[in-house]
Amino acid sequence: MKVVETIADLKSLRPRLAEPVGFVPTMGYLHQGHLALVRQARAENVSVVASIFVNPTQFGPHEDFARYPRDPQRDLALLEKEGTDVVFMPSADEMYPPQFNSWVEVGKVAERLEGAARPGHFRGVATVVAKLFNIVQPDRAYFGQKDAQQLIVIKKMASDLDMNLEIVAAPTVREADGLAMSSRNTYLNPEERKQAVVLYQALTLAQKLWSQGEKDTKAIRRQMTALIQKQPLAKIDYISIADAETLDELDTVRPPALVSLAVRIGKTRLIDNVVVG
Amino acid sequence: MKVVETIADLKSLRPRLAEPVGFVPTMGYLHQGHLALVRQARAENVSVVASIFVNPTQFGPHEDFARYPRDPQRDLALLEKEGTDVVFMPSADEMYPPQFNSWVEVGKVAERLEGAARPGHFRGVATVVAKLFNIVQPDRAYFGQKDAQQLIVIKKMASDLDMNLEIVAAPTVREADGLAMSSRNTYLNPEERKQAVVLYQALTLAQKLWSQGEKDTKAIRRQMTALIQKQPLAKIDYISIADAETLDELDTVRPPALVSLAVRIGKTRLIDNVVVG
Repeated sequence: MKVVETIADLKSLRPRLAEPVGFVPTMGYLHQGHLALVRQARAENVSVVASIFVNPTQFGPHEDFARYPRDPQRDLALLEKEGTDVVFMPSADEMYPPQFNSWVEVGKVAERLEGAARPGHFRGVATVVAKLFNIVQPDRAYFGQKDAQQLIVIKKMASDLDMNLEIVAAPTVREADGLAMSSRNTYLNPEERKQAVVLYQALTLAQKLWSQGEKDTKAIRRQMTALIQKQPLAKIDYISIADAETLDELDTVRPPALVSLAVRIGKTRLIDNVVVG
Repeated sequence: MKVVETIADLKSLRPRLAEPVGFVPTMGYLHQGHLALVRQARAENVSVVASIFVNPTQFGPHEDFARYPRDPQRDLALLEKEGTDVVFMPSADEMYPPQFNSWVEVGKVAERLEGAARPGHFRGVATVVAKLFNIVQPDRAYFGQKDAQQLIVIKKMASDLDMNLEIVAAPTVREADGLAMSSRNTYLNPEERKQAVVLYQALTLAQKLWSQGEKDTKAIRRQMTALIQKQPLAKIDYISIADAETLDELDTVRPPALVSLAVRIGKTRLIDNVVVG
């Protein structure tokens, strides 16, 4: 496994990678969700490139960029074990030199939900992903369904800008109790960790209500809200039931619908989602 | 010479083009400036792709999109004569389907001069050029120095977003009296055409003043202004003397400096520039 830290080195190495090339961009601190993406990339491509880059431009000024968990040595060992061929691990200065000032902005689908809660977040995501795609030139790139809106934004960008690759979505990987795997779960203390399962429980409730014939999104959201509010450390940021492609909010569930939510458990903001229909 | 109208057709044809591929993006109504770009692309590459696309997103709502001159049959004959291999000639709907909403924005260098006079112009330029680069996947792309700020914006975008190609600048091609070639020159009536040479005369004056030791940009701009104002149909939009890379306005000429101007001759807005030092 080769570890590459500069754009120039990756670009000069790229022509020697046998195609197709699968790419898994990450912010590191890898969990089973990331490793499932690597395994899928490994199964579907001749070469596998992963990146580890905690992208400063997708964090707001009061968010957790500085304390975002990092453990590159452990990450590299895990990636090697999964048969990764190349790991791209640039510095922030390498990706954003001082005069950097070009941005990819995806409209409407990037403005709601996480985009509304975290202004500038998806501009940072779209820009770094566009850069990584140009640097790595993959045939396929793999993203987890757990960040559902991110996936929608990246698919939209790739389609609108005619990028030459396939965006592959992989199912959310969950802990035994249903909590979606996330590097941010490490922020949770034991009591918070227990209560964090309520995100999954609320999504499961939504699915159950839908399968029982409930189509009124207000009624579904009300029951999800009541369930979450039973957890004393949980504070709802949003609960959304939206068209799974446009992210337009729905009054009546019309499948495929994306049920997504953001909830603070103590100081930690968690997101999760499920597609119904 | 192949003429291709859809993105899918160009992408499927692209692997059969021998490399390196040189690309000349145009809005059609070709003049000798465009043809000089094609000739240079022809000399420096194994395959040459040109595009003809009057890009709606780079025109403001009160600009000349609808009446921009078009003559595709003449353009195709000229491109064939120069040995172009492929012409990409998409419709506006092909490039911008109804839900299109992803944009490339280049910061500071896109906000001044033409960017200030034409809000949204460079967002449209950067976005369509990023799309065309992804569709054509050229090794080199050719742009005229006549649109100096466009060249700076595209170079900045390509560099910031790590695009895999070389941006090649070619000198402005001029009429016998010095007027820079432009598809918009066709708007000029005979009297306007005569007076339009004042843009070139003002730039020549700036060069002369600089070579005589004048470094005060205010003094140079004052003399350029006086010269232009002698033409009764000319109305100055801006005269700029700026750092040729950052476009920061200069008090004292520090080479390389970009002397650029926009002048209305009657109803037609013309631009031109020269680099001093």
